[in-house]
Amino acid sequence: MKKFINDPNLVVDEMVEGYVDAHKDKVRALSEARVVVRKDAPVNGKVGIVTGGGSGHKPAFIGYVGKGMVDAVAAGEIFTSPPAIAFYHSFKAADGGKGVACLYGNYAGDVMNVDMAVEMAEDDGITVKQVIANDDVPSAPKGDEDKRRGVAGEILMWKIGSAMAEKGGSLDEVIGAAQKAIDNTRSMGVGLSPCIIPAVGKPNFTLGENEMEVGIGHHGEPGIKKMEIKTADEVAGMMLDIILPDLPFEKGNDVCLLMSGLGSTPLLELYIIYRKVSMLLAEKGINVYRAYVDNYFTSLEMAGVTLTLMRMDEQLKQLLDVPADAVHFKQF
Amino acid sequence: MKKFINDPNLVVDEMVEGYVDAHKDKVRALSEARVVVRKDAPVNGKVGIVTGGGSGHKPAFIGYVGKGMVDAVAAGEIFTSPPAIAFYHSFKAADGGKGVACLYGNYAGDVMNVDMAVEMAEDDGITVKQVIANDDVPSAPKGDEDKRRGVAGEILMWKIGSAMAEKGGSLDEVIGAAQKAIDNTRSMGVGLSPCIIPAVGKPNFTLGENEMEVGIGHHGEPGIKKMEIKTADEVAGMMLDIILPDLPFEKGNDVCLLMSGLGSTPLLELYIIYRKVSMLLAEKGINVYRAYVDNYFTSLEMAGVTLTLMRMDEQLKQLLDVPADAVHFKQF
Repeated sequence: MKKFINDPNLVVDEMVEGYVDAHKDKVRALSEARVVVRKDAPVNGKVGIVTGGGSGHKPAFIGYVGKGMVDAVAAGEIFTSPPAIAFYHSFKAADGGKGVACLYGNYAGDVMNVDMAVEMAEDDGITVKQVIANDDVPSAPKGDEDKRRGVAGEILMWKIGSAMAEKGGSLDEVIGAAQKAIDNTRSMGVGLSPCIIPAVGKPNFTLGENEMEVGIGHHGEPGIKKMEIKTADEVAGMMLDIILPDLPFEKGNDVCLLMSGLGSTPLLELYIIYRKVSMLLAEKGINVYRAYVDNYFTSLEMAGVTLTLMRMDEQLKQLLDVPADAVHFKQF
Repeated sequence: MKKFINDPNLVVDEMVEGYVDAHKDKVRALSEARVVVRKDAPVNGKVGIVTGGGSGHKPAFIGYVGKGMVDAVAAGEIFTSPPAIAFYHSFKAADGGKGVACLYGNYAGDVMNVDMAVEMAEDDGITVKQVIANDDVPSAPKGDEDKRRGVAGEILMWKIGSAMAEKGGSLDEVIGAAQKAIDNTRSMGVGLSPCIIPAVGKPNFTLGENEMEVGIGHHGEPGIKKMEIKTADEVAGMMLDIILPDLPFEKGNDVCLLMSGLGSTPLLELYIIYRKVSMLLAEKGINVYRAYVDNYFTSLEMAGVTLTLMRMDEQLKQLLDVPADAVHFKQF
């Protein structure tokens, strides 16, 4: 294991310390639990936006704290849910008097801990409502959408929900917008290599020399199938063949497209895949309203790519266009 | 070689196609040569900012095209200088009537091609002046600064020079600011793994199972020494021990700090290193005015980190704070 770390058991604590120090003009840490919040949280009169989850997905989740995005993030150990108490303190820190929207991914540990934290917050008189992202198509068949995991589509859910909050929306309006965002979002990933969790010290799965894992999860969860690695153009086609029919996305649709590397895949490769995805969408009469291509939601140093599409209407377009100023998500 | 590519010889062309397509609201490609420019280039009455170099360093160089940053980028093959004709067309595309500042790194091929392109542009009546970045401390000893390579400090040079252009500075003022930026900037890198150039198909160097390369270059150029991998805190100290005495940076200095991954090193590890760098600087009475931590200048999927410090004065602070809106470099 070749990594720039000190104690494998302290990587998340030290990372959060470094992060908050580097960006202390924008964020601060709570003393009560491992939570990163906007420096000016809570913002009075604005619905608070909270998310959280296991660490190792940088810039998710703490990189998205900032104006026009998330108010507070509960940071768990690598690939492990934060405890309920961290979500609870996130809610308290984010509540500016209009309630809190907790927008997070569909993982059993997170769901359980958020539910417990919501009860704790209610005892304090803080109203918290939830949206649970389930955009990862390969993680469960159609009809079982509620079993699907949340992956990079969470970023678009945060963006839309946070924009509604920024524009002064009520808690129900924020929840409605975030739910609409994720209901119109589908993702899938292809993995080329595993990663090593520092405290484990060995790869989280194995792949053959020429194999790729189609439908891989953000923690190395197995996908639909292993197969011989294909060209970038073939991978582009394969991802669209899985995503498009599921919603379905159809001719005349406007979409927001988010393509993320899983960690060690160079941006160069993402743009090569993007090129073909864009061509194929154009052939189908689907218009890319806005494209995000970067490392938005990673899995330590895994090699691979995720593609996310969100079907847009006028409301989603307006909310997507609202400026944001998080450390790792800025939009004018 | 496990990569999302099609033809290994077309990776740069296809990447540029994908990039320009994804971000067509902000950039466009020239038809005359492989050059990416601001969509609205040339900006009348503003000094044009041009850079360029080999590809494989994404988001450098084309990710930095945009308002408040670079106007045009000549994109070479992987780790290979663009031809003179590409720099020439970059100059033509960027010239808004006040001349062009070509701000690039100290590599023999780039210097030769820029020099030729400058002559060609002069024949067209376009004035081009240059600043050549040489911030990489380990690449040549003190006293031989003009032999040093340019690495991630180029980003700060672009930021400062571009801000001066944005504020209406003359060509000489832009060149003066960019030169001042790089003269006050020092960098160094530590590598943990090689990368594979697609058209070559094998790693560009080798490192032992537990080895790191101290002082590595952006193309895998050997550094000062190979040694057993150290902890993040030790690496932080080692990098500062090389950078700080060279300028020197001293008690009371304000610095801009830029830490970049080389490709596959997770942001989590960068922030763990940052934590210790920041502590050590504080101990020495050196104040971090602004910190940038992300993948700013990579080498395909190499694992490693670079640390860059720029000593600030009031002018550099003001210029650093000017907003920028490039696809991969946004600052409010």
